[in-house]
Amino acid sequence: MEHLTKKEVDLVLKLLKLKPKAKVLDLCCGYGRHSIELDQRGYQVTGYDLSKFFIDKAREKSRNLGLKIEFLEGDMRKLPFKNEFDAVINMFTSFGFFKKEVDDLKVLKGVSKALKPNGVFFLDTINREVMVRNFRTKHWVKRKDFVMLEEGFLDLFLGRWESTRTLIFEDNRRRNYSISLRAYSLVEFINLLKEARLTLEGVYGDFDLNQYTIDSPRMIVVARKI
Amino acid sequence: MEHLTKKEVDLVLKLLKLKPKAKVLDLCCGYGRHSIELDQRGYQVTGYDLSKFFIDKAREKSRNLGLKIEFLEGDMRKLPFKNEFDAVINMFTSFGFFKKEVDDLKVLKGVSKALKPNGVFFLDTINREVMVRNFRTKHWVKRKDFVMLEEGFLDLFLGRWESTRTLIFEDNRRRNYSISLRAYSLVEFINLLKEARLTLEGVYGDFDLNQYTIDSPRMIVVARKI
Repeated sequence: MEHLTKKEVDLVLKLLKLKPKAKVLDLCCGYGRHSIELDQRGYQVTGYDLSKFFIDKAREKSRNLGLKIEFLEGDMRKLPFKNEFDAVINMFTSFGFFKKEVDDLKVLKGVSKALKPNGVFFLDTINREVMVRNFRTKHWVKRKDFVMLEEGFLDLFLGRWESTRTLIFEDNRRRNYSISLRAYSLVEFINLLKEARLTLEGVYGDFDLNQYTIDSPRMIVVARKI
Repeated sequence: MEHLTKKEVDLVLKLLKLKPKAKVLDLCCGYGRHSIELDQRGYQVTGYDLSKFFIDKAREKSRNLGLKIEFLEGDMRKLPFKNEFDAVINMFTSFGFFKKEVDDLKVLKGVSKALKPNGVFFLDTINREVMVRNFRTKHWVKRKDFVMLEEGFLDLFLGRWESTRTLIFEDNRRRNYSISLRAYSLVEFINLLKEARLTLEGVYGDFDLNQYTIDSPRMIVVARKI
């Protein structure tokens, strides 16, 4: 994961061209891997996540490394910031969880408000098209420590990807979790951005900056506050 | 084609449950194959199309069959009807040609206005998902009288399907034509319907009424004016 984090942060910085000590909001920071990497490269980071569990983890890790990163627990629909950040990042498929599209719009409006004028938004999420293209209702994935059964369903009426994952470890221990995500097409997402007064600057298909296509592993979007 | 027309009209009538002599607008009627079939089954049909060429053909065919169908030449964004029809049908991929989404919305608003209260709209178009799923930039199709080379491109920024087709006949004669279509996902289309005050009633994947899925050959939508 660490190598991946470095690579992702490299790309964020390459695309966003932030000034030294720029202020960055890591929206849905989880346990803070990007926040920490950005702080270590000299940026002023605020991590924000709904999960107390993750925020506690992030704080602990940050403290152990002798860093002073601000980590806040909160709902991404209710961002409490105004004209504060040079950049907001939202990494690793952390957009579209809410049942209603209007909530996703609230998030983007909050991002727009949190940004300084000319501030920039970076989003890294799934590519709806590749998902449709390769969709199987059931498939197995082999990882180092476990095998995973993914059982998926695309709700075309709601534009949502519903997935249940069962991880089976070598000692036969099992872990289940579900994903329910509004999978926006690029054109839909651009329309949402517009409504939040953010202007599209670029779209990429992966962290190597390849072109975004129906076969791209990711949909990476850069947008700017006007 | 005649067998196909009968089958398509069968389904329209089965789903729309129109009363005898109900008034039907065949929007983008082309040379009138559905208009004529519906007239012959006792409905009062108006055919509407942008193309003078097609309207002339439709009138001629209708006259030759001794029918009195009204065929009108006009822009689908400027429908001149108000509370007039029990049903509007739009068949055979005739939606999404305009460069701007607002024009597609104009069409739907015109449809809504043209319908009587409780009137019903039937649309039969491509399924964006199956297109993404099976997309190839170049492929050959073999038909009875010709082979066709289809060269396609999906513009994900605009949500458009751009395609150039070259038909090569046995005598080496060639014919070219292009298609440029805003390919709406179901959820996008439902949002457009709502804006035009039409309520979704059903979605089907083909003319056999199979469920609409990412692999359906068509996206067939039935919506009602509230």
